Amino acid sequence: MYPVEAPVAYPRSQWYVAGYGEEFTQKVFGRLILGDRIIFYRTADGAPVALSGRCVHRFMPLENAELKNDLVVCPYHGYSYGKTGQCQSIPTGGAISKHARLRRYPLVERGPLVWIWMGDPDKLQMERLPNPVEIGLGDGQSDWCVVIAKTFSMKARAGLLVDNLFDLSHLAFIHSQSLPGAGSLVMVPPKIETVDGRLRVSRVIPKMEFEPGSGLDRTIPVARQHGAVYCLLHTEMYNPCLIPSSGPWVYSLTADGQPDKLIASLNFVHIVTPETEHSTHYFGVVTRNYELDNDELSTIQMTQTDKVRAEDVICLEAIEQTIDGDESSRREISTKVDEGSIAARRILRNLIKSELEVA
Amino acid sequence: MYPVEAPVAYPRSQWYVAGYGEEFTQKVFGRLILGDRIIFYRTADGAPVALSGRCVHRFMPLENAELKNDLVVCPYHGYSYGKTGQCQSIPTGGAISKHARLRRYPLVERGPLVWIWMGDPDKLQMERLPNPVEIGLGDGQSDWCVVIAKTFSMKARAGLLVDNLFDLSHLAFIHSQSLPGAGSLVMVPPKIETVDGRLRVSRVIPKMEFEPGSGLDRTIPVARQHGAVYCLLHTEMYNPCLIPSSGPWVYSLTADGQPDKLIASLNFVHIVTPETEHSTHYFGVVTRNYELDNDELSTIQMTQTDKVRAEDVICLEAIEQTIDGDESSRREISTKVDEGSIAARRILRNLIKSELEVA
Amino acid sequence: MYPVEAPVAYPRSQWYVAGYGEEFTQKVFGRLILGDRIIFYRTADGAPVALSGRCVHRFMPLENAELKNDLVVCPYHGYSYGKTGQCQSIPTGGAISKHARLRRYPLVERGPLVWIWMGDPDKLQMERLPNPVEIGLGDGQSDWCVVIAKTFSMKARAGLLVDNLFDLSHLAFIHSQSLPGAGSLVMVPPKIETVDGRLRVSRVIPKMEFEPGSGLDRTIPVARQHGAVYCLLHTEMYNPCLIPSSGPWVYSLTADGQPDKLIASLNFVHIVTPETEHSTHYFGVVTRNYELDNDELSTIQMTQTDKVRAEDVICLEAIEQTIDGDESSRREISTKVDEGSIAARRILRNLIKSELEVA
Repeated sequence: MYPVEAPVAYPRSQWYVAGYGEEFTQKVFGRLILGDRIIFYRTADGAPVALSGRCVHRFMPLENAELKNDLVVCPYHGYSYGKTGQCQSIPTGGAISKHARLRRYPLVERGPLVWIWMGDPDKLQMERLPNPVEIGLGDGQSDWCVVIAKTFSMKARAGLLVDNLFDLSHLAFIHSQSLPGAGSLVMVPPKIETVDGRLRVSRVIPKMEFEPGSGLDRTIPVARQHGAVYCLLHTEMYNPCLIPSSGPWVYSLTADGQPDKLIASLNFVHIVTPETEHSTHYFGVVTRNYELDNDELSTIQMTQTDKVRAEDVICLEAIEQTIDGDESSRREISTKVDEGSIAARRILRNLIKSELEVA
Repeated sequence: MYPVEAPVAYPRSQWYVAGYGEEFTQKVFGRLILGDRIIFYRTADGAPVALSGRCVHRFMPLENAELKNDLVVCPYHGYSYGKTGQCQSIPTGGAISKHARLRRYPLVERGPLVWIWMGDPDKLQMERLPNPVEIGLGDGQSDWCVVIAKTFSMKARAGLLVDNLFDLSHLAFIHSQSLPGAGSLVMVPPKIETVDGRLRVSRVIPKMEFEPGSGLDRTIPVARQHGAVYCLLHTEMYNPCLIPSSGPWVYSLTADGQPDKLIASLNFVHIVTPETEHSTHYFGVVTRNYELDNDELSTIQMTQTDKVRAEDVICLEAIEQTIDGDESSRREISTKVDEGSIAARRILRNLIKSELEVA
Repeated sequence: MYPVEAPVAYPRSQWYVAGYGEEFTQKVFGRLILGDRIIFYRTADGAPVALSGRCVHRFMPLENAELKNDLVVCPYHGYSYGKTGQCQSIPTGGAISKHARLRRYPLVERGPLVWIWMGDPDKLQMERLPNPVEIGLGDGQSDWCVVIAKTFSMKARAGLLVDNLFDLSHLAFIHSQSLPGAGSLVMVPPKIETVDGRLRVSRVIPKMEFEPGSGLDRTIPVARQHGAVYCLLHTEMYNPCLIPSSGPWVYSLTADGQPDKLIASLNFVHIVTPETEHSTHYFGVVTRNYELDNDELSTIQMTQTDKVRAEDVICLEAIEQTIDGDESSRREISTKVDEGSIAARRILRNLIKSELEVA
């Protein structure tokens, strides 16, 4: 399914972000993920829970179900379910079948994010769970500031967003107003490599001085005192769902102009959870390891990322309209600068293909 | 088609309620029934008429056609049709083919309702027309008060509503506010039987005192003077379309506590006319055989039934969303209390199957 | 596809009207024609251009693309295209493939209209381009007043509109208010003939006096001084897209009552460009060869045609609803007065069939 050359739109045996930890409370909420209707909540002892979102009795959707003593109570006939998914009580009595059970989805909460395993629970692979401590999204990291940005419900397939994220050349066009100056940076040819087993598309500006009052200067004020710095712009694929873009990482320079110590890391973290084959939950987080308590800076960064992401959403929804159901979409023209996106597609394709072969 | 195990959603060789008699005037109106586009009106001499709702010439819908001297006049080219459906005049002249004819649907008006035969007109079965004089819906019954309630256009299949009506256990949940106290009554185990050839699911409260000022006391004030009474709650299937629920029927008690005379009957009559395979006209009537002129009581009963039915509509429309196109909907879990609904489904299934075998 | 007995809804090897010349400026706009997403603009030297409306790189729709120095610039990555459709520049560099090309559609501007050839560009047939100088729609005609009317986006197939235009008998019904009196005129039996190779359905009123103050008198005041006149009402099919109706043409009479000189021609020109198989761009133009500078008269004629066409649109959209997906729509009843419409359908059918045979 365009833009990934595979018969389905996404791999299932993967960890996807189900939501922000702060969304999980003792109130049930629902979300469609990979076409599955799922409900979420947090038990009184703090554990996040994900269950299939439809009562086994008469298929009442449970996204507005009440939570009573950690039990999800179906609004129609009062069937109630515990955190394993097993039905615990039927008000009108009768034996409770062991088949009276909602599917339970494994969850792992890590830092600000709650991850869900969408594959066969018996084949859960913990080693596939990304642990991006480098960008402040590991557990209990106090040396990072994490800003939760807007969640978009995008009416476009996830693959288009992955394409977009690995292709910085569009910054000069659809983001020319929201990211002034970024366009020229991204015209630097990208380097495509595998770092720690992950796809990385990077651009380097070996020596750069932050102009006082410029966008970068205001965003990373800590760099100013170092004079000329080395800037690393890169986008990585931690897994199909987690794609951070450095914004940038700034290094001091040695006397002979080589990158020395990492001064500041700013990351625009893009979280891409397919909702259906043609729609996507687009979560966003901004992380930085400097000026941790600067709320004003957090607001600026959040506002900026929301504005930029809104522009992408409009663009990708327009593309979704032109390609949906149109087989001719496969005849696209690419150039060298598209190699990053194409490498990302290849990873997705291989993940999907290896699943289909196993099945 | 869930919840009925049959390849189609409803039987056609049946009488369905087309509308309330009061809707039939000398103004044409349209309604979709079992997927058929039908127009209705009443001739000057009072006979209700139902014809297919599309001009035979160029397929103009006729639901806004003018009625002139009992003729339906197509707004596009003025073809006009009489009550048999035969085209009577073509303004531009020319011979009128005998094929220039709208399909006529047999109608029978009985009490406040107009019934339509949706099967082959040549195979019309008068004996299938229900004549529910027991609940005041026969012809010319002056000893009943009939209150017309709201008609809902429900975006859910009719089978879900039949399921709902034979399953009182949901009263304790989705109607816990609108029917306070009803929940406990319906926890009484139901008796499933065939009475006068009709499915009846009933519950009995052998001895009950109406608490002054309680909901039941205000609804059936006539019971108060009898002290303890016997209450019969039952839902019957007169035919696929007509499903009254007693609300309740109240009997006086003999000295030894047996039910004696019927003091009062209150009925919430549910009328289920499929619009399409996924939508339903849900008509409602409240009938009672006491306090006939008490308009205030009529208003209370109408308001109550509309509130309760609106809650069901919201619930069933939510379920329709979860099951539509989802084959896994067939793997449902049922318990003993669902036997009434399942018996109703079986009746529908057998009606459909016997039709398909004949055809 | 009803009402044309052909497997597809319209012929492609034809000239259709893409829009009014005045719509073509140095700003790109988009329109869906025969299901193709097309963009339009005018180069600085005045030539109208039509290109396929989706970037070849990542399928971004181009209807909001900027035009810079006659180049269409894709808003996503800045690919830019010249008027031949060939990609001229890719901002991130790299060789430009000759396949990086938008499809170019041949256009011809003639009078107020811009025509587009929707067939294979290599099989373009100039001789199929209508040149309706008789009604003021040729090039550079200064002896006609041309009034641009409203463009409707009609949610109904084009064939229904062609049917409607060749069938004047409906004037007495859906236009009874907007065209008072027209009904009686159109009850005159039509003559169906081929004039200059074009289908013409005409009605003649051999001798008519314009009642002072009547609608016709106000519309064609020039006729008044001639006393009794000969009126010709006719509808012609210039091609599948261009169907003018005379409104009417007025001739003076010889002493023995024969039509003599043409005094005035008034034309309501109907332009029918299919958008998809189920929707249509309905352009409209009113032309007259008298009172050229009478703006008030122009306004009256434009208002009238817009009102009448709006009534047709409502009617045809209602019919589209009743026939869509309904095979039984093929069993229609026709009479002698429908022969004009049926002749028009036959022309469309033959155009479609001859294309399919070639292909």
